[in-house]
Amino acid sequence: MNIEETMKKLTLEEKAKLVAGRDMWNTEKIERLGIPSIMVSDGPHGLRKQNPAEGSDMNYGEGGTIDAVCFPAACATSASFDRAMMEEMGKTIGEECLAEDVQVILGPAVNIKRSPLCGRNFEYVSEDPYVAGELAASFINGVQSKGVGTSIKHFAANNQEFERMYGSSEVDERTLREIYFPAFETAVKKADPWTFMCSYNKINGEYSSESKWLLTDLLRKDWGYKGLVMSDWAAVSDRVKGIAAGLDLEMPGCHGVNEELIIKAVKEGKLKESALDKAVKNVLKLVKKALAGRIEPGSKKFDRESDHRKAVEFARNCIVMLKNEGEALPLRRNIGKSERVTFIGEFAEKPRYQGGGSSHISTSRIDSALVVAERYAERYGNVEYAKGFPADKDVTKEEEIEKYIDEAIRASQSADKIVVFAGLPDSFESEGYDRNHMKLPEIQNKVIETLLTLDKQVIVVLHNGSPVEMPWADEVSAIVEAYLGGEGIGEAVVDVLYGAVNPSGRLAESIPYRYEDNPSYLNFPGHSHKVNYAEGLFVGYRYYDSKDMDVRYPFGHGISYTTFEYSDLKVMSDAKNNTAVVTVNVKNTGSMEGKDVVQLYVADKTGFVTRPSHELKGFEKVDLKAGEQRMISFTLDSRAFSYYDVDRHSWEVPEGKFVIEIGHSSKDIVLTEEISLDGTIKNIPFISNDVQLGELLECDLTKDYIVKAIEKYITAFGIEQGESNSSEMMAAVLKFMPLRGLRNFGGITNKEIDKIVEKLKKLVGQN
Amino acid sequence: MNIEETMKKLTLEEKAKLVAGRDMWNTEKIERLGIPSIMVSDGPHGLRKQNPAEGSDMNYGEGGTIDAVCFPAACATSASFDRAMMEEMGKTIGEECLAEDVQVILGPAVNIKRSPLCGRNFEYVSEDPYVAGELAASFINGVQSKGVGTSIKHFAANNQEFERMYGSSEVDERTLREIYFPAFETAVKKADPWTFMCSYNKINGEYSSESKWLLTDLLRKDWGYKGLVMSDWAAVSDRVKGIAAGLDLEMPGCHGVNEELIIKAVKEGKLKESALDKAVKNVLKLVKKALAGRIEPGSKKFDRESDHRKAVEFARNCIVMLKNEGEALPLRRNIGKSERVTFIGEFAEKPRYQGGGSSHISTSRIDSALVVAERYAERYGNVEYAKGFPADKDVTKEEEIEKYIDEAIRASQSADKIVVFAGLPDSFESEGYDRNHMKLPEIQNKVIETLLTLDKQVIVVLHNGSPVEMPWADEVSAIVEAYLGGEGIGEAVVDVLYGAVNPSGRLAESIPYRYEDNPSYLNFPGHSHKVNYAEGLFVGYRYYDSKDMDVRYPFGHGISYTTFEYSDLKVMSDAKNNTAVVTVNVKNTGSMEGKDVVQLYVADKTGFVTRPSHELKGFEKVDLKAGEQRMISFTLDSRAFSYYDVDRHSWEVPEGKFVIEIGHSSKDIVLTEEISLDGTIKNIPFISNDVQLGELLECDLTKDYIVKAIEKYITAFGIEQGESNSSEMMAAVLKFMPLRGLRNFGGITNKEIDKIVEKLKKLVGQN
Repeated sequence: MNIEETMKKLTLEEKAKLVAGRDMWNTEKIERLGIPSIMVSDGPHGLRKQNPAEGSDMNYGEGGTIDAVCFPAACATSASFDRAMMEEMGKTIGEECLAEDVQVILGPAVNIKRSPLCGRNFEYVSEDPYVAGELAASFINGVQSKGVGTSIKHFAANNQEFERMYGSSEVDERTLREIYFPAFETAVKKADPWTFMCSYNKINGEYSSESKWLLTDLLRKDWGYKGLVMSDWAAVSDRVKGIAAGLDLEMPGCHGVNEELIIKAVKEGKLKESALDKAVKNVLKLVKKALAGRIEPGSKKFDRESDHRKAVEFARNCIVMLKNEGEALPLRRNIGKSERVTFIGEFAEKPRYQGGGSSHISTSRIDSALVVAERYAERYGNVEYAKGFPADKDVTKEEEIEKYIDEAIRASQSADKIVVFAGLPDSFESEGYDRNHMKLPEIQNKVIETLLTLDKQVIVVLHNGSPVEMPWADEVSAIVEAYLGGEGIGEAVVDVLYGAVNPSGRLAESIPYRYEDNPSYLNFPGHSHKVNYAEGLFVGYRYYDSKDMDVRYPFGHGISYTTFEYSDLKVMSDAKNNTAVVTVNVKNTGSMEGKDVVQLYVADKTGFVTRPSHELKGFEKVDLKAGEQRMISFTLDSRAFSYYDVDRHSWEVPEGKFVIEIGHSSKDIVLTEEISLDGTIKNIPFISNDVQLGELLECDLTKDYIVKAIEKYITAFGIEQGESNSSEMMAAVLKFMPLRGLRNFGGITNKEIDKIVEKLKKLVGQN
Repeated sequence: MNIEETMKKLTLEEKAKLVAGRDMWNTEKIERLGIPSIMVSDGPHGLRKQNPAEGSDMNYGEGGTIDAVCFPAACATSASFDRAMMEEMGKTIGEECLAEDVQVILGPAVNIKRSPLCGRNFEYVSEDPYVAGELAASFINGVQSKGVGTSIKHFAANNQEFERMYGSSEVDERTLREIYFPAFETAVKKADPWTFMCSYNKINGEYSSESKWLLTDLLRKDWGYKGLVMSDWAAVSDRVKGIAAGLDLEMPGCHGVNEELIIKAVKEGKLKESALDKAVKNVLKLVKKALAGRIEPGSKKFDRESDHRKAVEFARNCIVMLKNEGEALPLRRNIGKSERVTFIGEFAEKPRYQGGGSSHISTSRIDSALVVAERYAERYGNVEYAKGFPADKDVTKEEEIEKYIDEAIRASQSADKIVVFAGLPDSFESEGYDRNHMKLPEIQNKVIETLLTLDKQVIVVLHNGSPVEMPWADEVSAIVEAYLGGEGIGEAVVDVLYGAVNPSGRLAESIPYRYEDNPSYLNFPGHSHKVNYAEGLFVGYRYYDSKDMDVRYPFGHGISYTTFEYSDLKVMSDAKNNTAVVTVNVKNTGSMEGKDVVQLYVADKTGFVTRPSHELKGFEKVDLKAGEQRMISFTLDSRAFSYYDVDRHSWEVPEGKFVIEIGHSSKDIVLTEEISLDGTIKNIPFISNDVQLGELLECDLTKDYIVKAIEKYITAFGIEQGESNSSEMMAAVLKFMPLRGLRNFGGITNKEIDKIVEKLKKLVGQN
């Protein structure tokens, strides 16, 4: 397809048709010009392709989508901190798309986890934009290497389900640039996703789908994005405004309603045809790219079993062991075959392995932990099991609870160790609504607390898409966070429990003690169709660490059956260019092979602007045999030290000191080194009548001059150290006194002030 | 003086002269028209009149101001929660002003205590605007009843010393209206202060001294203020802009500099002469009022000794007993004469009784606690004393610290009880700069912790203007917060320690465990000449209580040697007018006469907008003999239930439920009653294409209609309950789906939407 030629041949009516979907999942086709439909399908952790037999309407019901492999959801994969795994998963899903004739998979979803209650957190990556950007880019590169497109979503500031299609996210620009945008920016720069999906919500009062600032100025001009932007499903309010703003494709189609409006607007001169042309061209470019990658439909099938094995392998790489005391884990390694184990909780039978909504995969292949444990039974004997509580709901009736508890106690009577499979029911978290609280169903906490009274080691396995409060965390012996780990999670969990796999996941989010601790608590989910991101930059660990608050488990936390030690931190900084290369040695000091995630944080000590106490700027996952060591290196560009300066409209590095930190988690920093950078901006006072004397007295460029220039007025000010009014006070009064204050206190004239200002401007080089 | 006549006779030059001070403390005079100077002097907790012998320049040194009575600073008087005392103190200071020929005393200062570190907190009232407004109004009424004026300050949003003359307080309007303005508004409405003093800082980028919105639209139009506005000393940047904005008087004078600019601006037509006339008229009206109250200079002297007795009496009413365990207090009541007491800490010899800066009073009459304790010596024997640590600084040298500690231990060897007089040195808190941390000098904590190892009862008395961290609070037996209690504090403290006075102060501020807990922590004191009030409404207890956070001692806390019980809460609400009358019975259930502060909080349960979990809306101080009881009543107007609606530009009561709470502190609520109010606004959806279906389904006015209207599109949407995608999810999708979303999902046309919108508007009465 020659796009330029095709553009010339298209009528206005055809153009207006092309910028909306043909139906729920396909783009429009124009047969006379050989423009075919291409198909998009939900993702991102598997292929959710509409079952052709079900027609083209969205269908969330059974059989509505084809049988496919359910990989771990993003809550789990993010914990892998493993770029290579993300790319491999992308490739695998890309091949499934190819086989199923799907041209674009709708993912990854990289919205920042602002609140643990956001219903969609399970399919988002992290509270940290660096992690989100890195893992998303790897995934995109994986998918797209197969000639299949991705759609990074939801652009942007869509961090809750409450009123998601109407509410406005009220966020200051610096916070957008530093927290809510970088994952998207990184994806553009490292992976160039074929498509972007704009979010439902408004940002500061304007729909994302209508924001020229967002879709054109920022995305295309600032970041250089060349691909297509589509709407989230029904995110379009004013389609004409959207086209002018840079929204190329409305999805799904709207039965011709907006087509008419576009034609009218162009005819009436309210919408430039050139704006419409841009959108059409982006659609054609996407179609062209899709055609290039397409294979003959039906010519290839994806290998369901092999992909299932990958799902298991990925899940093994994601599980986070939060706690393990008293050698509770691995099971049956210490006491040998005589160790008796009981599984409690219906999640052992029915693992919750994915969340509800558009990401929901129809899979026919689930192994529960109970079933998988039988594999180990040959060596270690059977496990006992009691349901303990249902997986799909809470139980509130006293007599029912008691029955469950009695059963659990009976099944645990002869056990040496009890493994409770706890988690959130589907009805507690899903796309479409936020959680009301951060607690597990009450019956689960009751069962765990009752089992703890038996004085046996209790191990908790968690299936949940976002943090839960763990009132029993100090009492239980071990906690394994399995998240929503995809169809392989049952097997992966059992492998970790029995020590066949050494867990290597790390939390990509903080787990606070209680919901009230979260920084968004007072401003979530908002009111009057607005949600105020008042905590600003201080999301997740940026808040807990800056306020030096304890959390249940910090960002980056996760333990292993072996131990890792860091040493020999070396930082080679290029002060002039504000970059650094960091090397550190990591050693497996335990007796089992395992993977570690080395984390690098940067702390700004310049005091130039308010910043989080430190921010993640590097991580590496490394696999080490017992006793093995390796040097890891990180390359930090100037962006790693930058903040976004809203007044200057640019990323700036402040002159001064930074600390490079290497740690096991955001709260477990073990090596640090301070460096000095020249910065891109210096702390030079802005000169005007209002400049504070203290700023001038502290600046090397102006110090000597100002002392002399104001001497006589200061003397007239009559500063003497009094009985109880300290010299500190007088110094402070001068420090914060604007130059023009000497009019009142020193009798300076305006002419004299003007002269001083002129001279000062020269001294600091201000025009 | 006939103001209208005088105005006619004034030349432009004279007018320009009259709107600035003649010197540091006097207004300008025009002898040919019989317009005299009047004198203003610093306050607010005493008369800080420039010593005439020192000339007219500001002089903070010894002898710079006349000898006067130093009453308790606002940090202390606010803890009285006693309107009558504030009025009495106002009257007393008013009489001192009369005697000294001072026409306006520069106070009260009512800025909200946003951060415990603000250097000037000691002279501010509270973290709560209701307390600040009530106590300020009483004080103003007291002073002005004597024919002397006040100047309520610093208007507004001046809540720190850092960059106070240049920085911008970035605060959203609702927060300004609900937190930072009401104390000023209450003063206008209940006490009509002769003058207002504008603050140094900018608000949202504009100097207070130049803000028409602040000084005219809000103060004069909204609140109906008729008096004069003067600048804080050297708060003027652009004087011409200030006149247009409503800043009547620049203080101090600026040696004619601005006079010239005003004349020029009027002549060039850049400033309307009518604007200047307004300012001049306000100056003349003030002079006229001042003349009416003035007495013959020298004709009367104030009674220094009688006023000193008042200072003692006031101080007794302010002291807050924070803790008293194991009958540690009163001293010598339990073991009789055999109880031996040691005082430690130089504050016992040299109490810190006021803060540094413009409020600093020169007083010749200080009794230390040590001296006063001798009065009790006849009955109970002498107290031992060791300096323990200096009152004016920290000590960091190890050997010096050890010497102090050894001395303290020796002096405490034979004691039954040890009273440590701790506090902040002058150099730690003052006008002019903020504290760097919330800790006591380290040596003091070390001494207290060492004394605790002696296994005797340790009692701590605190002299400080703003909360300090108390790492030893759980270990000591009693804590007495004496604040900066004025020249009578030594006597008052000893009276409380020995039980001659029953303490009745309550905290008008929260004491957090540590500075990091404070809501402004991440945004104080700001950077780039801006401070972001990101915590919004959640200042002080509004934050700690809404986040359900523990604090060391909560707002409103304070204990007594007796006990008080509340009962018979009755709430008579007028739902239509959104008012209520509340009565409650309070009984002294102990064995000693004492005063209690009954506190009333209102909690909004409507969920209409984000609000603090509860807010103080009433308090009464009541004196009860042992066993006595009394019925207290509160009248709540609609404002007690209102929030400020920024979109509607008005105070609104949401329809729904409110809870009236009666408690001993913000964290110790003992009686509650729920009421329902009709409100001034109802939760009716705003109708447009974008209205969410859930809003329509939940509203009684639209429910039935919308169900029918969209039925066929919903069916087309194809909702079925799937295997794992819950019906909850589908219901939620509908709930947050805008009406226009049915274009994409249901095939509705724009015409049909328009018809539905029209009908809905009729149903809810929206034009």
